[in-house]
Parts: sequence; C-alpha cells; structure tokens
Amino acid sequence: ARSYSITLLPGDGIGPEVVAVAKDALSLVGSKEGFELRFQELLMGGAALDAVGVPLPDETLAAARASDAILLGAIGGYKWDNNEKHLKPETGLLSIRAGLGVFANLRPATVLPQLVDASTLKKEVAEGVDIMVVRELTGGIYFGKPRGFGTNDKGEEIGFNTELYAVSEIDRIARVAFEVARKRGGKLCSVDKANVLEASMLWRKRVTAIASEFPDVELSHMYVDNAAMQLVRNPKQFDTIVTNNIFGDILSDEASMITGSIGMLPSASVGESGPGLFEPIHGSAPDIAGQDKANPLATILSAAMLLKYGLGLESAAKRIEAAVTATLDNGFRTGDIYSPGTTLVGCKRMGEEVLKAL
Amino acid sequence: ARSYSITLLPGDGIGPEVVAVAKDALSLVGSKEGFELRFQELLMGGAALDAVGVPLPDETLAAARASDAILLGAIGGYKWDNNEKHLKPETGLLSIRAGLGVFANLRPATVLPQLVDASTLKKEVAEGVDIMVVRELTGGIYFGKPRGFGTNDKGEEIGFNTELYAVSEIDRIARVAFEVARKRGGKLCSVDKANVLEASMLWRKRVTAIASEFPDVELSHMYVDNAAMQLVRNPKQFDTIVTNNIFGDILSDEASMITGSIGMLPSASVGESGPGLFEPIHGSAPDIAGQDKANPLATILSAAMLLKYGLGLESAAKRIEAAVTATLDNGFRTGDIYSPGTTLVGCKRMGEEVLKAL
Ligand SMILES: CC(C)[C@H](C(=O)O)[C@@H](O)C(=O)O
Ligand SMILES: CC(C)[C@H](C(=O)O)[C@@H](O)C(=O)O
Repeated sequence: ARSYSITLLPGDGIGPEVVAVAKDALSLVGSKEGFELRFQELLMGGAALDAVGVPLPDETLAAARASDAILLGAIGGYKWDNNEKHLKPETGLLSIRAGLGVFANLRPATVLPQLVDASTLKKEVAEGVDIMVVRELTGGIYFGKPRGFGTNDKGEEIGFNTELYAVSEIDRIARVAFEVARKRGGKLCSVDKANVLEASMLWRKRVTAIASEFPDVELSHMYVDNAAMQLVRNPKQFDTIVTNNIFGDILSDEASMITGSIGMLPSASVGESGPGLFEPIHGSAPDIAGQDKANPLATILSAAMLLKYGLGLESAAKRIEAAVTATLDNGFRTGDIYSPGTTLVGCKRMGEEVLKAL
Repeated sequence: ARSYSITLLPGDGIGPEVVAVAKDALSLVGSKEGFELRFQELLMGGAALDAVGVPLPDETLAAARASDAILLGAIGGYKWDNNEKHLKPETGLLSIRAGLGVFANLRPATVLPQLVDASTLKKEVAEGVDIMVVRELTGGIYFGKPRGFGTNDKGEEIGFNTELYAVSEIDRIARVAFEVARKRGGKLCSVDKANVLEASMLWRKRVTAIASEFPDVELSHMYVDNAAMQLVRNPKQFDTIVTNNIFGDILSDEASMITGSIGMLPSASVGESGPGLFEPIHGSAPDIAGQDKANPLATILSAAMLLKYGLGLESAAKRIEAAVTATLDNGFRTGDIYSPGTTLVGCKRMGEEVLKAL
C-alpha cells in the first residue's frame, strides 16, 4: 500500500485538541482509501519555547522537511506575547514557512449554506460567497531586508522594514494563482497598491505579463483599500484573489470573517516542491484551550487540503469534505457556530461525528 | 467681521459638482454666523495634468499653504491610470499632504440612523456604529526611502519600498489620537503588526509610552489582520482607532463601507500648524461625473470638518451637520443611498435642500 509520512505540529492552545481529531480522520480515510499514513508529532511555537527554548527547533524543521506533508494546529498565546522577537511563537511560524519554501498560501473563504446565518452580513450578501485568496507567503515586508531599529539624522530612534518583490517571486505566485483560478470560476483579481508603491507597480506589471500564459482566465486589478471595501460591499464579485504577503494577511482574515465561521476555514501553504504546510486559519484561542470547546472542522478541512494539495489524493480529500458537510447536515455544531435548533457538541464529539460520517 | 481664505480644489470627475454645492453651504453658514469666507479655486489632480502637465502645480501648493483651509473634491480617473508615477493624479495628492505637513487624517465612519439599511451588515451589527479612524498620513511606506526599482544579486528586477517610522512621527499622531479619543468615547485602539514588523514594534512602544499623558483614555492594541476581522464581526467594539498610513488606508475604507454610505463620509487632514485639508473619502467616480447624480453630502460634511477642525468654528460646523441630518429626515436621497419610500434627488437639488435646512 502507498505510505506517506505526516508531521503533526499541534502547537499551542487548542492546537493539540483539534490536531488529535484531524489525525483520527486522516487515519480512517487512509484505511478506507487504501493508503497508510505514518505520523510523527513534533514541537513548535510556545510549546517548543517552553520545552527547549526556541519556537522552531532544528529537529522540527528537519523532520518536517523530510516528511510528505505537515499538519499544524495553532501557535501563540498571551504567555509569550511580550517575548523578544526571536523568542516569539510567531517567529517560529515565519521560520518554518521560509524553511519549507512554501510561498503560496491558499485560503478559501466559503459560506456554507448550513452556516449562512453565522455571517454578520445580510443573508443575500453572504449567501454563495466562495473566494480563494492566494497569498504570497515567503516574501514582501515579512522578510524584506534591511529591517530593524536605528537612528535617523535627527538622532531619533526609528523602526523600519522593507517591502520588496523580485520578478521570480511574483511570477511564481501569479502562476499558482492563475492555475487555481482556472480550476475555479476562471476569474483572478490581483490586489496591490500600484498607485503608490513601486513594489506594487512591479507586481502589477508581472501579473499582467504572466496572464498571457492563461488566456482562459480573466484578470482584473484592484487597489487594496478598494478590495477591503468590496469584500464588505459585494463579496460575491470575487472568485480568486492574488496578493502580497501583508495585504493577503489582512484581506484573507477579512474575507474569512465575512463567512462568519472562522472555526471552519482551512489553509494550505505550498512551494515549488517539497512538503506543504496545512493549518486552520483560526488562532490558538488560549481562553478555551483544554475545555473541549474548540471547533475541529477547520483542522479536519485542512487535513483534506493536505490530502488534495499535499499528497494528490483528491478522492480521499473529497471524502473528508463530504463527511464534514454530512455532520453539519446532521445538525452538529460547536459553540462558535451554534444556533438554536442545532445540537451543541464539543471538540471530541464533533470529531466522532465526522468519523461516523466517513 | 472675521474673514477666512479657503482654497477650493475641485479636482476630477464628480469633484467640481460636489465642491460647488459645499461652497454654497459654507457661504450661507458664514453669513448666518457672521464670518466671511473668501474662496480661491485652483488646479489639482488630473485637471492640473491636463491643463499644465503636473498633478500639483507649485502655485496651487503655495496658494493652499497661504490660505486658512483647503477643501478638496476628488482626484483621479481612468484617463490617467497608466501614467508614470510622477504624472499620476495620486502623486499630486501625496505631494499636497506632504507639502502641507498634514500628518493626522481623521476619518469618521458613522452609521446614521436614517441610513442603517444601506449597510450590507445586519441591522443589529451596523446600528450605532460610530468609529473615528486616525490615520498617520505623511510617513510610513507611502514616503519611506529607499524606494524604487533595482536589480537583486541574481540579476533580477526588484521593486521596493520602505516602511519607516521615527519616534517623533509616532508620538505626534498618538497625541492627536488620544486627544480625539478623549473627546469621544474615551477608548483608543492602536492597530499594528508588532508580531512581525519592527516598525510596528516601535509604533506599539511609543503609543504605549504616550498613553501615560492620557490616563483618562483606555488604550488597547490589535494586530491589523484581527482588526480587519473585528470591523466585520463587531464594529461597535471600536471607538477611536489609530494606525499607520497603509493600514489606515485599508481599515478606514473597510470601516466606511461598513456604514454602507461612502457618499456620506468626510475626512480631515491636519498638521501641527498651518491649514488643514478637508475632503470626502469617496473617489472621483468618473462613471457618473457631470450627470448631476453625485452625493454632495460627504463634501458638505467635509466642509463642516473644515469649520470645526480647520477654523475652530464649532457652532457653524454643528449648523451644517444639523442641516444634513434634517435633509435626510426630510427624506431626500441621492441614488447611492436611495431606498423605496424616500425622494430621489440629484446633486444640485440635494445641495438646495441642505441650504433650505440651513
Ligand atoms: C501569526 C502571524 C505571524 C501570521 C501572519 O501574519 O502571517 C498569521 O496572522 C497568519 O496569517 O498566518
Ligand atoms: C488615492 C490614494 C493615493 C489615497 C491613499 O492611498 O492615501 C486614497 O486611497 C486615500 O485613502 O486618500
């Protein structure tokens, strides 16, 4: 039987609870579809800081690199919020993204018919929203140099970062986004601030150039401030969005909140080659950690993305997605998506229901 | 009688129509309150590009500087979208902001009871929203150097910008924001990305330090991605927001769309001393320019901000605001805020109704 090695990085807060549930779903779908998954669990984030003093131990990165795909829970928490930069859980996350070279972050924001009422947007605005944000993940202002602190010519302290993109970085994320758009609604909206920033002018020029390789995809451009508005005004106008690291951080979170069900949304981060990194978009939610209250569906759906984008096992991915849909149709809800008339369950029970549906 | 000189910069698209109406409102309120306004109209934006080849003629900046306050309509349009950077209308806008030193941009996002249905958010979420975004306007990545294009060590073309803040830049915008918050609900939320960016770490450190001068204001901090979500999830949690130039560009537009009535929202840009710049937050809307369809209320309310923040004429400002409220109460609506049961009017007629109410 085919066999794959999966790195599990439970991380902090509710991370371990949701990863445990997703692991069971992966094992079960493997046995149904006739492949084997070998799991190794490693330290990352605050958990790693507490255990060994760094947010991303070398062994974790090495083991992750050597595996076929990585499933991450969540990292961070109040406890480490005031740490120096190199001792922040977030720094571990940025290091593993860079270390794996996963430059393309796919973040779907889909309003499920069962959960349309969870959105703060009016039903007719939220209904049917199905957006994929393709965010550049290993470049831009997150990684650009020079960065740091210094003194200006008046002797004042300054803090600075560099937003920088090279042609090859833009071209490769644009190609991923066009491929994604082609398999979806065939529409790609590139978001930038080309009326002000040179980095965005180059972005727009290259995305426009790459478009000639994808004549079947309709390309448009939008300024980031307008995109932030349009997501609220009429999110249904968007199919696939491609944008840089920082704008993608902001817009993908905005888009996900528009669906009203952050606890439901997965993400995939993939590179040219090598294993991909799959994680729910929600945080570590330290306030509900260890209370069996977390919604494991985002992590289960991240496991589905792992199967599809990480291992190329599309039918296994579909099985998981169908099981999640069935579980919602059966009326099960965790607290974050609960509404009167449905059955309130905890993290474990939700996992069991998904396994049953599988 | 007191006399003030006002620079009018009608600009492009619907700019001239809405500025004409706001000018009449200013004149009338002046005669009621016993002060005189002397107007001079100057070229800026695409109009200046077409007439004299630059987006901000030297005479315009000099005259603006020498006046007591500036009222701007809107700039830009498809026609100039592909111009080189120094020939873009937007570059004129950035130059006048820098030239006037108006580092504090105040952008209210208020849901008026008459217009709550215009929001795409559910009524219970939108109702009562009253946010003031204080955006830093003359620093950060909009102006940071180095910027431009170049070649990296692999010989590839790069585009780059610098996000940079010095202590004095942060301190002065923080003080403005604390002052504003103090006169409003007493709550200030500073938005940054201090978990990743050094410029944001310094921002957070200084805003926290300045807080000690304002013990009566409650300060909180939020990451920009979370702020983009929270504006959708529960905008009522915000009173005053302070943030950098680029995050402010994005979040203030998002916040304004949450109110559902972009055509209603004014803004004020003020500096340490010298005249302030007042403008509606909407764009030049070239598609409806010259058709008497534009909503002039945002510009009329910008004129009210000009009276209040620019000239210190608070009672005159209140008169204008009251006249706008009365006009809405009387049921008059331009197309952008029309709903069944109200009276659809054009730009001029809306202006006349405000004058009547004055
Ligand atoms: C935790 C933080 C560093 C991270 C980011 O900004 O990329 C997070 O917000 C995300 O979007 O995955
Ligand atoms: C036109 C553009 C340069 C400008 C900005 O980004 O500041 C506009 O979006 C605004 O917010 O006033």
